[in-house]
Amino acid sequence: MRILYHQWLSPFCRKIRLILAEKDLAFELKEERVWDRRSDFLAMNPACQVPVLVDDEAPNETAVLADSTVIAEYLEEVYPQRLLIMGSPVERAEIRRLSAWFDGKFDEEVTRNLVGEKLMKRLLGLGGPSSEAIRAGLSNIHYHLDYIGYLCERRTWLGGDHLSLADLAAAAHLSCIDYIGNVPWDEHGDAKEWYARVKSRPSFRPLLADRMAGSAPPAHYADLDF
Amino acid sequence: MRILYHQWLSPFCRKIRLILAEKDLAFELKEERVWDRRSDFLAMNPACQVPVLVDDEAPNETAVLADSTVIAEYLEEVYPQRLLIMGSPVERAEIRRLSAWFDGKFDEEVTRNLVGEKLMKRLLGLGGPSSEAIRAGLSNIHYHLDYIGYLCERRTWLGGDHLSLADLAAAAHLSCIDYIGNVPWDEHGDAKEWYARVKSRPSFRPLLADRMAGSAPPAHYADLDF
Repeated sequence: MRILYHQWLSPFCRKIRLILAEKDLAFELKEERVWDRRSDFLAMNPACQVPVLVDDEAPNETAVLADSTVIAEYLEEVYPQRLLIMGSPVERAEIRRLSAWFDGKFDEEVTRNLVGEKLMKRLLGLGGPSSEAIRAGLSNIHYHLDYIGYLCERRTWLGGDHLSLADLAAAAHLSCIDYIGNVPWDEHGDAKEWYARVKSRPSFRPLLADRMAGSAPPAHYADLDF
Repeated sequence: MRILYHQWLSPFCRKIRLILAEKDLAFELKEERVWDRRSDFLAMNPACQVPVLVDDEAPNETAVLADSTVIAEYLEEVYPQRLLIMGSPVERAEIRRLSAWFDGKFDEEVTRNLVGEKLMKRLLGLGGPSSEAIRAGLSNIHYHLDYIGYLCERRTWLGGDHLSLADLAAAAHLSCIDYIGNVPWDEHGDAKEWYARVKSRPSFRPLLADRMAGSAPPAHYADLDF
C-alpha cells in the first residue's frame, strides 16, 4: 500500500491527498511529527518536511518521493489515467504557474500568517500568534480571492477548461484557512462559487472530515452548501 | 528573438540562463527593476518577479512564461534536444527534488541571508544588512556544501550520471554567493571539484562576465582554476 507521510493542516500534504484521490490511487496516511526529526524519516527526506510519498505500487521500483511539486509531477508521469497538468506546453505552464502561485506567494502572504500563526505555532510551542502577521494575512487574502474571481470570469477552472493541479493547489490552501474560519467568502462570490465546485468533489470529502485535536472547525467547514 | 527578463544576481534567473545556453537556445537579456512594478511587466507576470521568458520561437504561439521552475519544465518539454530532467520517473523526481532543495531550502537558509542582506537590501534601499542573518547564512552554507560533497561521493553529478537541472540550480545559487566571496571552498574539496566542473562549461561563461555596478566580485570569481 502507498504511504503518505503528512500533517493534517499542511496545504502541501492536502494537495497530494487530492491528487491521489482524483487519480483513484489508494493510499494510507501516516502523521509525521517532523519536529521530532525521526532518523528513519530524515533518511527518506533530508529536508525533513512533509509530504513524503512511498509508492510501493510503482511499475519498476518502490519510489520514495519528497516535495509536493515533485510528487505531483511524478504522479502525473506514472499515473496519466487522469491528467491534472494537461494541454499544450503553454497551457501546462499556466497550470504550473498558478500552482506555484498558491504554493509560493499565497502560502507566504496568507497561509503562514494565518494557519502558521494560529495553529502551527501553538502546536510547536513557539509562543502566541503575532497579531501583526494575522492582520497581514487577513488583509492579503482579499486580493488573492479577487484573483481567483478574475480567473473564474475568464475560464471554467483556474488553469483553463478542466479541473487541474492549479485548482487543487489553491483549494488545498483555502481549505486550511477555512478550517480556522478566516476566509471571507461572503465578500467574494465568484471565488466562493468556484470553491463550492471543488469542495463537492468526492476527492475532497476526506479533507472535510479532518479534525485536529483541540481545535474544531466552524460549522460551514464541511458544509457543501456554505 | 527570445527575451529573458532578469536580474543579474538572481539565482533563479541564472538557472534559466544556464538552461537556455545548455540547450543552445539564443536569447536576449533585459534587466527588469521589479520594484518599479512596471505595468507591462505586471501584465506578463502578476507576481511581479523575475525571471520571465518570452519565447517567440515556440512552435505554435508566442509563450510568456513566469516562475523559474515552470520555465524549466516548459523548456524541457518544448526543446528536448538536450535533456536536463532525464531518466525514469524516479530519477527525474530525484533531479527535481534537488533543484527544489536549492531553490527552496538553500535559498531560504543561505542565499537570502547573504546575497539578500549584502546586495539586494542596499539595491532596494532597505537599510543595512542584518549581522544576525549574515551569521546564519555563513553557518548554514557549510552543511549544504557537505551535502553536495556527500552526493558527489556517490554520483558523477548531483542528480545522477549526467549533468542535470539539479547541478544548474545549485551552481546558480553558489555563483551568486561566490560573487560576494562567501563560499568557503577551501574547507569543502568535493563541492569545489564539482563546482569547477560546472563552472568550466561554456554555458557558464556569460555568468562569470557579469559585473554589478558598485560591487566587483573577488578575483577568483571568474577563475576556472580557483
